[in-house]
Amino acid sequence: MEAVIISCGTELVTGQCVDTNSAWLSEQLTAQGVRVVEHITIGDDIEDIRDAVRWSLDRAELVIITGGLGPTGDDLTREGIAAAIGQPLEESADALGRIRAFFERWRREMPESNRIQAMIPKGCTVIPNPRGTAPGIAYQNGTRRLYSLPGVPAEMREMFEAAIRPTLRSSLGDACMLGARLLCYGISEAKLGEAIADLMARGRNPLVGTTASNAILTVRVLARGDDAESARRLLDADCNEIRRRVGRVVFGEDDETLQDAVAALLIEQHKTIATAESCTGGLLAKRLTDIAGSSAYFLRGYVTYSNESKTQLLGVSAELISELGAASEAVAKAMAVGCQRAAGSDFALSITGIAGPGGGTPPEKPIGLVYVGLADSAGVTVHRFLMGEHLTRAEIRDRTCKSAINLLRLRLLSDR
Amino acid sequence: MEAVIISCGTELVTGQCVDTNSAWLSEQLTAQGVRVVEHITIGDDIEDIRDAVRWSLDRAELVIITGGLGPTGDDLTREGIAAAIGQPLEESADALGRIRAFFERWRREMPESNRIQAMIPKGCTVIPNPRGTAPGIAYQNGTRRLYSLPGVPAEMREMFEAAIRPTLRSSLGDACMLGARLLCYGISEAKLGEAIADLMARGRNPLVGTTASNAILTVRVLARGDDAESARRLLDADCNEIRRRVGRVVFGEDDETLQDAVAALLIEQHKTIATAESCTGGLLAKRLTDIAGSSAYFLRGYVTYSNESKTQLLGVSAELISELGAASEAVAKAMAVGCQRAAGSDFALSITGIAGPGGGTPPEKPIGLVYVGLADSAGVTVHRFLMGEHLTRAEIRDRTCKSAINLLRLRLLSDR
Repeated sequence: MEAVIISCGTELVTGQCVDTNSAWLSEQLTAQGVRVVEHITIGDDIEDIRDAVRWSLDRAELVIITGGLGPTGDDLTREGIAAAIGQPLEESADALGRIRAFFERWRREMPESNRIQAMIPKGCTVIPNPRGTAPGIAYQNGTRRLYSLPGVPAEMREMFEAAIRPTLRSSLGDACMLGARLLCYGISEAKLGEAIADLMARGRNPLVGTTASNAILTVRVLARGDDAESARRLLDADCNEIRRRVGRVVFGEDDETLQDAVAALLIEQHKTIATAESCTGGLLAKRLTDIAGSSAYFLRGYVTYSNESKTQLLGVSAELISELGAASEAVAKAMAVGCQRAAGSDFALSITGIAGPGGGTPPEKPIGLVYVGLADSAGVTVHRFLMGEHLTRAEIRDRTCKSAINLLRLRLLSDR
Repeated sequence: MEAVIISCGTELVTGQCVDTNSAWLSEQLTAQGVRVVEHITIGDDIEDIRDAVRWSLDRAELVIITGGLGPTGDDLTREGIAAAIGQPLEESADALGRIRAFFERWRREMPESNRIQAMIPKGCTVIPNPRGTAPGIAYQNGTRRLYSLPGVPAEMREMFEAAIRPTLRSSLGDACMLGARLLCYGISEAKLGEAIADLMARGRNPLVGTTASNAILTVRVLARGDDAESARRLLDADCNEIRRRVGRVVFGEDDETLQDAVAALLIEQHKTIATAESCTGGLLAKRLTDIAGSSAYFLRGYVTYSNESKTQLLGVSAELISELGAASEAVAKAMAVGCQRAAGSDFALSITGIAGPGGGTPPEKPIGLVYVGLADSAGVTVHRFLMGEHLTRAEIRDRTCKSAINLLRLRLLSDR
């Protein structure tokens, strides 16, 4: 079965709001084995709604439209659907009764303007809305079905669960679609694509694709099966194969972060960490404490932004700083060592570099040059990164922290 | 002028990602007086892309398509556009040169798979991508124009600014639409709405509306004028009136942050700041160093996550912590005083509290209870906040830092 999702609202086409309903509905439908072929977003305009509904009913068996069912003059989805299916609007006694009951429950008078929400196209049925005044509208023509739901996410979701999901199960049979996302760090999208090119072949089941966002690469795997078990088997086989090919590059699944992965390893190995940051200004400590329960492994962080604080708090020699500059391998090393000693932690991560947009002195010290130190009681290693002068200050700080956390992750994996 | 925006990506129609590019582009186009009539989202499918491009070029003078320009097999926007306009793909020497140069800049080998990104439909021109390997594609047929940009938001935005926005200005004529956003902190949306209700009347010019996001309230003002000067006059009059009514609640405009406002005040007054954080784990220091040039006012930050570190680094008495708990007014006070003294800064901000999701002991110490201390060499004040148990850990940490930075902002404004 194929589906089209329509979102209706001038606030969407003017960019004042981001449409999250379509993604949520798509996720639900995809998980049920429905192929969502298109999202359409239009403003509150009768002709645009009419045309979009007509086109969608032509294109797919299932059409869901959200938004435009409110009581004000700019809510025109009712009219648009009526025009698309060539039926007049009629007052539904069922819908009016439900709207009245909604107000009675809160002991309020029903404003006359809410009465318009009881108008539905002739031949359509009402979808009850337990959380609001806008009833939904259901239309069926042969095997083609259209559902109109309110734009308020909580109302839309509850009505989808109650009125639409049950009908999908019965029309799909046992078929099932399952998805997974493998998150990767420390590889280019091109290299990742080369490593799994055969799995990404068009039309293959599972469907495998990659996306890049802020230096994190995501491999999406979507498996279709005749039942849940066979979909799960296909999904797991591909996920295992991808992990086998790219190894430790995969740090997590779905919504996991690099710090989630590191936190789990630190807790598993009963290890503690402290941080000493210059150019990232606290972001590394922030990430490592994003996780509830981080006090089990995170002891303390130093944001040694001034040179004086590097000397006072971490014992970095002032001569070293004036001789080699704060953004240097030797200073990163001294920061990590000083931090580990002062904190008495198992590990210490240090960061110093040039986040920009000013302060770069190419070619020796361009913007984006960053040193990350990793110390334990036995020694220290320092890694040099060139994050790229084309990146913003925020991006350089973000990627520096990701690289630092990833270094600790790889270290903990090696120790295991 | 009317526009259609197309987003391309299977991750979008399956609901694995929310499309934010279309909203951003719509906001930019709307502010330039372009009417965005529709957003279309489709998967990585040549026929679907072809049909969407054809339909859109029929419907509107301006079409922008994002996504699907990567180097892997599921990136099919190039092919889809070529099919829509009936032209073959050709390797562009210009594009290939830029991709090679991108890799050379980082002294890396160009993977062979990136070569496909230099393929563009015959008759189209290349839009340079300074931040990535995917060049954009521009197509013109009479007054109809199509721009294809990468899906990575940062790349897409920079290329829009460089290649598309300048062409819009010239095609719009004298009529002008100007927008502004006034950013507010420390007032409820209902109170703000009451204060400016008359300005928010429907159909009024300028159009005034409010939105709330993560405790920041935004007042949007959109003014239409026959020329730039008259639009500017209307816009400024409304902005001034809103500022007059709500006063210091307005901390900035457009994309400014609370830390931007505080940084400007600190620099103006030649003052310095240091921080001591427990539950926010470095986020406060991170925000205060978000700004280029923050070394002018930010000296150092302590992330005293363990109780031991509070005692060792800030001199908070261990008895005080064991008696009253780390999340207490007295500890916040001692942290701020200890931090100011150790750093020798003009001001010190301290934060201690319960970010959750565990660790709350209601009614005395529920999740979301936070103390913020503000010290200078003359003394210290502590503010108690109840952020709300319904908030997530990330939200509590976010709002705590906003409140702390806002306290410093109000203090600096009073000192002025």
